[in-house]
Amino acid sequence: MNMDSPFCISLKDVEEAHTYLQDKVHLTPVLTSSSLNRTTGRNLFFKCEIFQKTGSFKIRGALNAVRSLSAGGEGKPKAVVTHSSGNHGQALALAAKMSGIPACVVVPSTAPSCKKAAILGYGAQVVECEPNDESRTYTAANKVQETGGVLVHSSQDPAVMAGQGSIALEILQQVPAVNALVVPVGGGGMLAGIAVAVKALRPDVKVFAAEPKNADDCFQSKLNDRLTPNLAPPETIADAIKTSIGASTWPVIRSLVDDVFTVSEEEIKRATQLVWERMKLVIEPTAGVGVAVVFSQRFQALSKEIQNICVVLCGGNVDMGALDWLQNPKDTATS
Amino acid sequence: MNMDSPFCISLKDVEEAHTYLQDKVHLTPVLTSSSLNRTTGRNLFFKCEIFQKTGSFKIRGALNAVRSLSAGGEGKPKAVVTHSSGNHGQALALAAKMSGIPACVVVPSTAPSCKKAAILGYGAQVVECEPNDESRTYTAANKVQETGGVLVHSSQDPAVMAGQGSIALEILQQVPAVNALVVPVGGGGMLAGIAVAVKALRPDVKVFAAEPKNADDCFQSKLNDRLTPNLAPPETIADAIKTSIGASTWPVIRSLVDDVFTVSEEEIKRATQLVWERMKLVIEPTAGVGVAVVFSQRFQALSKEIQNICVVLCGGNVDMGALDWLQNPKDTATS
Repeated sequence: MNMDSPFCISLKDVEEAHTYLQDKVHLTPVLTSSSLNRTTGRNLFFKCEIFQKTGSFKIRGALNAVRSLSAGGEGKPKAVVTHSSGNHGQALALAAKMSGIPACVVVPSTAPSCKKAAILGYGAQVVECEPNDESRTYTAANKVQETGGVLVHSSQDPAVMAGQGSIALEILQQVPAVNALVVPVGGGGMLAGIAVAVKALRPDVKVFAAEPKNADDCFQSKLNDRLTPNLAPPETIADAIKTSIGASTWPVIRSLVDDVFTVSEEEIKRATQLVWERMKLVIEPTAGVGVAVVFSQRFQALSKEIQNICVVLCGGNVDMGALDWLQNPKDTATS
Repeated sequence: MNMDSPFCISLKDVEEAHTYLQDKVHLTPVLTSSSLNRTTGRNLFFKCEIFQKTGSFKIRGALNAVRSLSAGGEGKPKAVVTHSSGNHGQALALAAKMSGIPACVVVPSTAPSCKKAAILGYGAQVVECEPNDESRTYTAANKVQETGGVLVHSSQDPAVMAGQGSIALEILQQVPAVNALVVPVGGGGMLAGIAVAVKALRPDVKVFAAEPKNADDCFQSKLNDRLTPNLAPPETIADAIKTSIGASTWPVIRSLVDDVFTVSEEEIKRATQLVWERMKLVIEPTAGVGVAVVFSQRFQALSKEIQNICVVLCGGNVDMGALDWLQNPKDTATS
């Protein structure tokens, strides 16, 4: 709890996380594309968390959460537990390994085997559950009891939020002329962490959320001015942001996020492919959501004074088994 | 012709090309991957020509060829003509556009329409021919006569070779501790240009060629100590290097290239996928040939004193229409 902040984290928490993470995660580069600048009529800056350890920004929050658990006076926790079939699961597995404690990740039995393999590869235990909310909550709670460990939520844990916020401190250094950040939102840990840091240091810089139309709980929450989770599990190719924002992230998002932009599945696919094709970067569709927003009509209508836009390419983990192309190429002519 | 070199180009030609190109092409970054370093037990440095204008290194040679044609006293040529369905075709189209002269690219009627579209996108004329050597030579010769233009060969033109050699000058600056360069070879323009520069400036640095087993004319030529072109059109996924080395590049390769490593189709596919997956870089399989070489048994057997290896990721142009995955994703679980 922070006495100097109306939220569960403050700039100080983000700064502490940043200092701790400095020699543990990559300072990811910011790339540009003159072709995409021409298309949008703005200067785009792509913060490449695809190059981050584990292939997404999630390692920042996971490491900071493990640090924060170890700082409590009782030493390191006996274990960390989470439920995630995706990037947070891999990140917590690596963070635990780096800190020398066991990790247990609860994944739905339906998750692709490559994701389970990645978590196992970082030395964590994988426990399968039924693919529904009750089963995963129950299974995770069971593992917490069994291991005497601690549950680390992928987005609502304040230390996770502060860790993700370190991205903002890097962007403000790397792109001092930035006018706006575009940040994909699922549970909102990254969005809230970034918003707290940006609005404390550079209140003139806009913080925009990017969300699939098919999972628009953040958009609806801002519209209704109250937390409005997705009613049913959303159908979107942006699989890392199907989660809804929650109790920790909503107050920050409500107060500090300037606007939420939503995009269709078609727009997400087109933007993702464009980045692969033009920038030669493997991004996952969730990262494509931010790019799609910058191309969207509503964003294009923003004042041209918002000229320098930084889009967070949050992750690059795609199932390469799906690339039939490489295994069964069409014959092409000689160059 | 160079009086101070036994070859058709010398270091001076490469240096002049480099100076000319400096404000016209990207100084592409050199990236590293701790995971691939661990796997190979060496320090790998990836020179990212995938980020180059037109998505491959070919713009270097094309621009330098157009410059050299314009420097002859008669001013700019009336037009430039080439036959290529691949990266050189796109590069010459852009180089001509940047220099304000017309370009005509002869492509086999079987070439994928996306490649024709890219060439048209740079404002060049596309002329189709039958998919065989006679037809493309005849069609190109016809266009040369018709336009009063000049044929720019994709690899045997000395100015093209010198332009590609500028990559080496950048690498020696960016990775001063480099012990060896690994360079994919098709016609050998890039390989020869790089070898001339490296051996003049840093004769201690090895220059290794990387070639598909299925298109191993460079390997055979070195083995037989005489130019030994592929007998039939090769079948390889590395479609940009099906061409054989030739009259201009062979003498350089014969004298200056330290060794040629060949890899199987399976090795090329695996290496290409590994770079997509681990480094999040979209490389074309031709670039994967160099990566596969570093992983190959014969390369692994090299002295560990050859510790710092720079692999040229020569291009990233793949047909994204082949990515069914993005259009028809499997359902994945929430994170």
